[in-house]
Amino acid sequence: MKPEVLLSRIRVVLCRPSHPGNIGAVARAMKTMGLSSLYLVDPKQFPDPEADTRATGAVDVLERAKLKSSLKDALAGTVFAVALSARQRDIGPTLGAPRETVARLLAEAGEGEVALVFGNETVGLSNDEILHCQAAVAIPTNPEFSSLNLGSAVQVLCYECRMAAFAERPPVVAQGVTPSTSPVARHDEVEGLYAHFEAVMTDTGFFNPEQPGRLLPKLRRLFGRTRLERDEVNILRGILASTQVKTGHGRKN
Amino acid sequence: MKPEVLLSRIRVVLCRPSHPGNIGAVARAMKTMGLSSLYLVDPKQFPDPEADTRATGAVDVLERAKLKSSLKDALAGTVFAVALSARQRDIGPTLGAPRETVARLLAEAGEGEVALVFGNETVGLSNDEILHCQAAVAIPTNPEFSSLNLGSAVQVLCYECRMAAFAERPPVVAQGVTPSTSPVARHDEVEGLYAHFEAVMTDTGFFNPEQPGRLLPKLRRLFGRTRLERDEVNILRGILASTQVKTGHGRKN
Repeated sequence: MKPEVLLSRIRVVLCRPSHPGNIGAVARAMKTMGLSSLYLVDPKQFPDPEADTRATGAVDVLERAKLKSSLKDALAGTVFAVALSARQRDIGPTLGAPRETVARLLAEAGEGEVALVFGNETVGLSNDEILHCQAAVAIPTNPEFSSLNLGSAVQVLCYECRMAAFAERPPVVAQGVTPSTSPVARHDEVEGLYAHFEAVMTDTGFFNPEQPGRLLPKLRRLFGRTRLERDEVNILRGILASTQVKTGHGRKN
Repeated sequence: MKPEVLLSRIRVVLCRPSHPGNIGAVARAMKTMGLSSLYLVDPKQFPDPEADTRATGAVDVLERAKLKSSLKDALAGTVFAVALSARQRDIGPTLGAPRETVARLLAEAGEGEVALVFGNETVGLSNDEILHCQAAVAIPTNPEFSSLNLGSAVQVLCYECRMAAFAERPPVVAQGVTPSTSPVARHDEVEGLYAHFEAVMTDTGFFNPEQPGRLLPKLRRLFGRTRLERDEVNILRGILASTQVKTGHGRKN
């Protein structure tokens, strides 16, 4: 199943949100990660201009948001629901970590609609609401300050959803490869650079060929780990040559 | 090294933020994940009551925030900096994915202070600012709506930092990093090297400050991806200084 389709099957359900600004922030967080299905259970104030403002370009998510009077109604038709909770409840599903829980959510999304359920900004989800969900997730936080903003909590979990949905697909930008504007330098070109360094350093007296020490190996180690481009070799040799002209040691290279 | 100590070594640097509310949201996002070191480069409005409001219980982070007039000043003393960027620049470090890039950031935090660098809400980071960083990271977003809120972007990356710090201990050697025999060079030491290159190249006529072209950015790109060690900076500056003595342009560095 395509990642975009999996993401479209994830409902974000907000239970009794107090601040319309947070609803807007949630819409924006969802849309940046490719989610679009927002359910609002008994919001204190909605629609609201503050929600539109904070949503910026995600007002369409707000416009299509579904208003429900209970979590049960909001979850109708889903095959799997995860509750966000800061703590393990006496009764209720075991708290999982975000990455593992989201992996399961995505797997279940292959079967049908799923949900991420968030509670009120101050009081969170009730025990009864948690019991409507098949799994619970806690976002790891600083124990001395665990006050994650509602929009931020949604952002983090939607981000994990996108990462998981696209995990199997090759990244847009290959890892560890610097986009070249110039071809990578050939071995002999790099050797020419080292020889040039040695000549200049010998001329200036910085390097004493009779007591070479570790200077040349250190330069090789430095440039050896960069995958020098031809263009860069030319620049470095240009600099070296310019100092030789100045000192009268210039030569054809 | 304890995870808490690693996290305390991560600076969050905001370049020219426009909205004080976002600065507050950033402080809150940082503190929930155990980060506390905030640097503000030329903020439009700070301090500001709106920042305090959005920070809620993280006002202490705002109070200890350091105000700087340039990114260079904000990065002084760091050994590694990652720039957030939405796109690959022509010149600049390769864009990496959050998880891999943060893993490397944490590994480098074992060596010293590191930084996550964020640009202005509307225009992002300039090319020049990106070239002050050794790595760049893009948060994967919906290509049809990639407008991640500044606070949300900070939240996602700080969350990844916390996940990485508390997962297994970060590897001693991150991918692509050569084991050090010498401490990694600090940002100001590397800046000193660039200034020295510029002085020598200007003296020899290789570089014309009135028609700078792309020479200096190319040198930054070359050395920016090598993680220069202090020893290596000293060698390169030694070579540069030796050519200056020869040409009569020597100076105390």
